[in-house]
Amino acid sequence: MTLEILPVAGLPEFVAGDVVAEALVVAARPEPGLQEGDVVVVTSKIVSKAEGRVVVLDGTTTAERLVADESVRVLRRRGDLVVSETRHGFVCANAGVDRSNVAEGSAVLLPIDPDRSARRIRDGLRARLGVELAVIVSDTFGRPWRRGLTDVALGCAGLGPILDLRGTVDVSGRLLSATEVAVADELAAAADLVMGKASGIGAAVVRGVDHGWLREGSVGRELVRHSSEDLFR
Amino acid sequence: MTLEILPVAGLPEFVAGDVVAEALVVAARPEPGLQEGDVVVVTSKIVSKAEGRVVVLDGTTTAERLVADESVRVLRRRGDLVVSETRHGFVCANAGVDRSNVAEGSAVLLPIDPDRSARRIRDGLRARLGVELAVIVSDTFGRPWRRGLTDVALGCAGLGPILDLRGTVDVSGRLLSATEVAVADELAAAADLVMGKASGIGAAVVRGVDHGWLREGSVGRELVRHSSEDLFR
Repeated sequence: MTLEILPVAGLPEFVAGDVVAEALVVAARPEPGLQEGDVVVVTSKIVSKAEGRVVVLDGTTTAERLVADESVRVLRRRGDLVVSETRHGFVCANAGVDRSNVAEGSAVLLPIDPDRSARRIRDGLRARLGVELAVIVSDTFGRPWRRGLTDVALGCAGLGPILDLRGTVDVSGRLLSATEVAVADELAAAADLVMGKASGIGAAVVRGVDHGWLREGSVGRELVRHSSEDLFR
Repeated sequence: MTLEILPVAGLPEFVAGDVVAEALVVAARPEPGLQEGDVVVVTSKIVSKAEGRVVVLDGTTTAERLVADESVRVLRRRGDLVVSETRHGFVCANAGVDRSNVAEGSAVLLPIDPDRSARRIRDGLRARLGVELAVIVSDTFGRPWRRGLTDVALGCAGLGPILDLRGTVDVSGRLLSATEVAVADELAAAADLVMGKASGIGAAVVRGVDHGWLREGSVGRELVRHSSEDLFR
């Protein structure tokens, strides 16, 4: 299996009501195109703007207020940084409230239901192109233990976010005991390599994935670890 | 920038003393080849075996004993699972002691100095092929908050593991406040997409990365977060 990671250049600035699938079709034509079996990774920033999740900040609606509203549980605070759990179950900095790549004096919130956002984009691509592909809505999160940020999947459609290898055997014939690969996160990370925060490329195509990965799936139900299962909450 | 992720098939089973660079050159010929600017990702399992980090288990040398020996600090325990900090500063399950893909009754330990391992492989490839490329030694780790495992970088050579975008501006001209991208981890994750735990492919090539990423770098010094900076230790 060989993969290609292809940037989708030329996407417009999105505003509330824009149809992300339509913009992707236009921007991806002719290169890299959108083909049967492709995984299309779209940053949540685009999705949030198209879904109207942009808030103008003022004396009442401060960034701090938004972070509190978007959080169901604060895990840590240090200076301006809040690490909290969102109502989706994501644990991230500032509950995903982000002031970069948005008009001065505004902030972008995470999509309300990123799996649903991904399904809507996937359905829109299918309707326009007549092909079956997968969609991931991604964002950039920090993590404990390691410096730097990596992109992860917030939502998906047409993709199983976890590849379950438990019960398969390794090359020595030993049963693999605990190998569930978070392919949706690995695909989001791979896509980020061609996007880049500064270049303004907000979508990429991963071409050549194993067809067995393409099934109905949900980040919220499969990839998010419930706090009751988490050793660090 | 378009990336290709290419598996290196046909690597042998490694034993202590094997020269990983030599085996990579042979297995990668003619496809996918090894070219100037490629990032070669090699699983730590291969590196550990070649470096003799395989231990035969018996009544005294148990897996539990090895996990304790390899840990400098235990963070959590649940059943058989220990989440601990290794002397490298990695936080992972069972201190990286792994019984899969190794002979029955044996366990593989992490390389002693994965950055040094990566440099040795890089130097070996350069000597044999006369090209400059980067090497990542990768492993599969779990993480808090999210289910499933992803591959991360344990060591690197010829690559800056963190891409520092702080001080650059976004497309709106706003200064990006805190964006350090862990490209080494994203490259390891991308490579894992073509490797697969069960198929026995232990190396992959990422072709087409930004030349600006190719500099001297160290996972240990740049990507590992010291416990004093970590909100969760």
